[in-house]
Amino acid sequence: MRALVLERQHELAIRDIDIPMKMGPGDLKIAIHTVGVCGSDVHYYTHGRIGSYVVNAPMVLGHEASGTVVEVGAGVTGFAVGDRVCMEPGVPDLSSRSSKLGQYNVDPAVTFWATPPVHGILLPHAVHPAAFTYKLPENVSFAEGAMVEPFAIGMQAASRAGITPGDVGAVIGAGPIGIMVALAALAGGCSRVYISDFSAEKLKIAAQYDGIIPVNLKAESFADVLARETGNWGADIVFEASGSAKAYDGIFKLMRPGGTLVLIGLPVDPVAFDVAGACSREVRIETVFRYANIFDRALSLIASGKVDLKPLITGVYTFEDSIKAFERAASGLPTDVKLQITMG
Amino acid sequence: MRALVLERQHELAIRDIDIPMKMGPGDLKIAIHTVGVCGSDVHYYTHGRIGSYVVNAPMVLGHEASGTVVEVGAGVTGFAVGDRVCMEPGVPDLSSRSSKLGQYNVDPAVTFWATPPVHGILLPHAVHPAAFTYKLPENVSFAEGAMVEPFAIGMQAASRAGITPGDVGAVIGAGPIGIMVALAALAGGCSRVYISDFSAEKLKIAAQYDGIIPVNLKAESFADVLARETGNWGADIVFEASGSAKAYDGIFKLMRPGGTLVLIGLPVDPVAFDVAGACSREVRIETVFRYANIFDRALSLIASGKVDLKPLITGVYTFEDSIKAFERAASGLPTDVKLQITMG
Amino acid sequence: MRALVLERQHELAIRDIDIPMKMGPGDLKIAIHTVGVCGSDVHYYTHGRIGSYVVNAPMVLGHEASGTVVEVGAGVTGFAVGDRVCMEPGVPDLSSRSSKLGQYNVDPAVTFWATPPVHGILLPHAVHPAAFTYKLPENVSFAEGAMVEPFAIGMQAASRAGITPGDVGAVIGAGPIGIMVALAALAGGCSRVYISDFSAEKLKIAAQYDGIIPVNLKAESFADVLARETGNWGADIVFEASGSAKAYDGIFKLMRPGGTLVLIGLPVDPVAFDVAGACSREVRIETVFRYANIFDRALSLIASGKVDLKPLITGVYTFEDSIKAFERAASGLPTDVKLQITMG
Amino acid sequence: MRALVLERQHELAIRDIDIPMKMGPGDLKIAIHTVGVCGSDVHYYTHGRIGSYVVNAPMVLGHEASGTVVEVGAGVTGFAVGDRVCMEPGVPDLSSRSSKLGQYNVDPAVTFWATPPVHGILLPHAVHPAAFTYKLPENVSFAEGAMVEPFAIGMQAASRAGITPGDVGAVIGAGPIGIMVALAALAGGCSRVYISDFSAEKLKIAAQYDGIIPVNLKAESFADVLARETGNWGADIVFEASGSAKAYDGIFKLMRPGGTLVLIGLPVDPVAFDVAGACSREVRIETVFRYANIFDRALSLIASGKVDLKPLITGVYTFEDSIKAFERAASGLPTDVKLQITMG
Repeated sequence: MRALVLERQHELAIRDIDIPMKMGPGDLKIAIHTVGVCGSDVHYYTHGRIGSYVVNAPMVLGHEASGTVVEVGAGVTGFAVGDRVCMEPGVPDLSSRSSKLGQYNVDPAVTFWATPPVHGILLPHAVHPAAFTYKLPENVSFAEGAMVEPFAIGMQAASRAGITPGDVGAVIGAGPIGIMVALAALAGGCSRVYISDFSAEKLKIAAQYDGIIPVNLKAESFADVLARETGNWGADIVFEASGSAKAYDGIFKLMRPGGTLVLIGLPVDPVAFDVAGACSREVRIETVFRYANIFDRALSLIASGKVDLKPLITGVYTFEDSIKAFERAASGLPTDVKLQITMG
Repeated sequence: MRALVLERQHELAIRDIDIPMKMGPGDLKIAIHTVGVCGSDVHYYTHGRIGSYVVNAPMVLGHEASGTVVEVGAGVTGFAVGDRVCMEPGVPDLSSRSSKLGQYNVDPAVTFWATPPVHGILLPHAVHPAAFTYKLPENVSFAEGAMVEPFAIGMQAASRAGITPGDVGAVIGAGPIGIMVALAALAGGCSRVYISDFSAEKLKIAAQYDGIIPVNLKAESFADVLARETGNWGADIVFEASGSAKAYDGIFKLMRPGGTLVLIGLPVDPVAFDVAGACSREVRIETVFRYANIFDRALSLIASGKVDLKPLITGVYTFEDSIKAFERAASGLPTDVKLQITMG
Repeated sequence: MRALVLERQHELAIRDIDIPMKMGPGDLKIAIHTVGVCGSDVHYYTHGRIGSYVVNAPMVLGHEASGTVVEVGAGVTGFAVGDRVCMEPGVPDLSSRSSKLGQYNVDPAVTFWATPPVHGILLPHAVHPAAFTYKLPENVSFAEGAMVEPFAIGMQAASRAGITPGDVGAVIGAGPIGIMVALAALAGGCSRVYISDFSAEKLKIAAQYDGIIPVNLKAESFADVLARETGNWGADIVFEASGSAKAYDGIFKLMRPGGTLVLIGLPVDPVAFDVAGACSREVRIETVFRYANIFDRALSLIASGKVDLKPLITGVYTFEDSIKAFERAASGLPTDVKLQITMG
Repeated sequence: MRALVLERQHELAIRDIDIPMKMGPGDLKIAIHTVGVCGSDVHYYTHGRIGSYVVNAPMVLGHEASGTVVEVGAGVTGFAVGDRVCMEPGVPDLSSRSSKLGQYNVDPAVTFWATPPVHGILLPHAVHPAAFTYKLPENVSFAEGAMVEPFAIGMQAASRAGITPGDVGAVIGAGPIGIMVALAALAGGCSRVYISDFSAEKLKIAAQYDGIIPVNLKAESFADVLARETGNWGADIVFEASGSAKAYDGIFKLMRPGGTLVLIGLPVDPVAFDVAGACSREVRIETVFRYANIFDRALSLIASGKVDLKPLITGVYTFEDSIKAFERAASGLPTDVKLQITMG
């Protein structure tokens, strides 16, 4: 089976690789149609590791995928050959304590595509549990289907935020995840969302959406803008999506007394955290790890038209050109949000 | 001061009435601009009472109002003469146990405009606490400002529902409150909202909004439609906004296991309630009484354009014609949602 | 294998029956030690059915059980032969939508011991998933282990109640479930719990616990007592554990504005429910269906000594005498709470 | 009026001082009976400041108080001369946005006893709003009444924690606040609470309570103990009550996936905070600022006997000896929890 293989840091190859395709009860076989290029895929390519996850052996990349069901395993109901689907890349032990609690994303036994030593999905076929496969509504394309995974992170952030309808949101960082968070917060009940970044190009992409208001940190402070726009009250919910340690400097001044901070970005090292500042506003802080029970809700919002992810697909490559897609992604153009690869 | 006075059941008069206009600390004096006609105003007119609230003496009607600040009381900050505002008609004892808990709407000491024996607001001026007065954003008209009160009920329902982003909502009843609930649920995070009624005219008004899907109960059962549209899962949240006892027949079959029912409509008599049906799905039920801490959020959603209430204003009358407005409202045209009176 | 078999309504037999004992991956084989007699077991015996669950074929009774692991299936970690355990009698499809949400108790595919057509546990051995088996702490006896199941219902009620520490609780009905609810509410954060019944004997059993205050409905109204004891504020949380339709008459007058009602008792027919009364206090209503993610917490409370269930075991029978236990249970002595059978 | 006055850093005097005693509507006049010595009082004495609060003028100390109503202001209901009471020392602007939301503790306009420039309560009489005064149940002594304030901080922590009945709690720091938190967590639903400190004396005081389990950090690591005691799962809720920056090192390893961290201790400087560690367990973090809507619940728990604060009163002084009380408190004996002063 031909796949895009990360041989080792800095070295990609399109080549044959032997991946087991054994169907168990509850499984589906899926012909992969579209795969998005994620920052984590690129990071494995450029750094050979993410934290304690190290690429020690050749690994197929890719975990944002849509496709078509080609075989239905024993005991599966609700799926038929030909169904267009997208897939949740993490599969937990469903009998674990975390899974029984509904928090299967934090089950330590989760296997996740393209996270060493688990292969990813940039290949023609995959076997995947039906329980983590979702049918695409008729009006949702394969391209949008492959966007569900990154959008799901934004949705998890918006879900954990506990938005009260009409809340004012603020997102720190207008990268792909920051934009996903802003869109999910807006669809999830915020009246408007301010988003901050140092990059005018990134802010321009975010600002094409009604209700997302860009704040260029080169020109103004986020705290000043939010104070002015909320009558010195502050944002109801602040989403940290930059992963920058500097974002934590004065972060609680962005929010109202009794407000909420949601942490999505992952700084490499510990950050300087102002406990007294948090306590004086009695802030609640939620953290996000991937997602659980989100894909169906994300698809509902896309299908209803409340969320339009298509403008964020800024480049499409064939599988044969997939290494070019990774090279472009690694170059970090600020005008890029999401590159996709069609498996053809 | 000339006012619209309900002398007794069935008898309205525009006449002079003596209303105290004494300003205390924290108060504003407001010149009334627009007042909406609410179903409760009409009910006092046609029935002379609502439950235990009886019109025993002449009472000024009206509680959905916007206007302009003409005098600012001692100790008030954040308001100036000339500010365009709308007003929350219920004023609690802020030192009560309920108010301290943030649930000032259920404080038994609340006084509420046009609820006997408290006069309403269909008159030229009113004195009102600044704490329950809200500035209209620049792009929100007086007409929209007078719509905040009825919309706030929908917002309270959507807030108490605890919507998770992407939830599927279902509203029983497409009257004015049902439509407000549907709009709030949609703005508050639902991906789409099904609304049911027996009136094609009412459903047509609701269906003009993207994301609100009408279900005519003369043609199909709500349970069947929801089962079909959700893969036999059910709505995440069901809002009962009809006040009809019949709505409770099979109501838990509309919703998914673990779903939520929100009660807004007020049947006169006790309803037949299927405890076992509720328990077998382990449903959570929230109830709504007016609103608390909602006006600012409602205004944010109107100002941002996420909620457009203007199409629901189906008739505007001058104060001199206000009795005609009440007569039309009492006739119950299914094509009417909200009639308003401008004080001129 | 000898078992207590309900042949049909009114007819019990201790006899051999063929029950498959096939171990799958993740399973344990358990030698049963103690089994409690539940009201539902008795109801199948006396009525031959509960609602739509009808005994159409001989069925082994019993679902409140403790025992000892005698065999450990493939892939099981954390259990060894000889471990003393208790078991959760309902086993869901872990890949269902409800299970993934953490609400596996409302998964329609749940199989539950001694619920037709599934056999119960009044037999020498059972095969059960390790994921629904819980080790008994050293200081928890088999008798207490077999009490975890009924206590778990009280715990589910206390969990869904969302108790704020110091809340005043009120329980309607001092039967076995009412007492379990009162104990769980007290251990779960209530400062004190009032419990009402018409039976002085039942109230006496409840009142042996510090913090549980009996109210005899023959002598005084529950609303009057609660008003007097809370300064006319009302209980923070009311638990309906009687299953009586009459309990719903004036039920919202028991609770404070903004209070919570938890429904555990299951009236056969719909009850007369005062929607306006619920709304005027903006009550939240939670419903309970069995339990999920509760057994481990229940065991923690028993092991810590915060909850002592031993006084509620009012009779113990050998397996050979188990029919006598059912006859006594069917006679409904008000001084009985829980009868248990030891498998010997 | 004679009072204990902090003239400036390091200088206390018992002397006459002129404090206005004007009664407004809603006020009570209270003869002070007992006042506890709080760490913050002592800190003003030893340091002359806490953060940005600086003692620039003589200030009466004390904010943990009980007493007797001697005069009842206009409009007050529910209080009579002779009532024994305790008082909430912070009084907000009840018409502020935070107060209307029920979070009056974070209203920036709060005035708080013995927080510059507001005088405290170590004097014979005080005028205080009835809305922030609470009657002592018959079986609660003045000494216990003066313990409600410090206990309320523990209760606020336990309330915001959102304890599910049976949760395992862990408290970092066995100082007075740590012990209050442990007691509140236990009364509020935890099955047991582990508490860690480097001081054997402090741990001994905590360990006198059933359900509180001491962990001496000189002997073992808190993470190791919790892992061992919870089957490698972790505490459900961790309370940081030490205020030490070192406590944040590895703090997320103390808790289970999906657990909760509650921050009560206030480090002077920002701490090193492991965002990735928090996210990988998808932890929720709650912060605590004083308390709101807690005093009545705290009194309920004391009156019911679920919480016994009397063993924590380790010294009692007359008002004439109150400077000695402060000197002893400033010496920081590890065997002291709470010193109290009786006004005589």
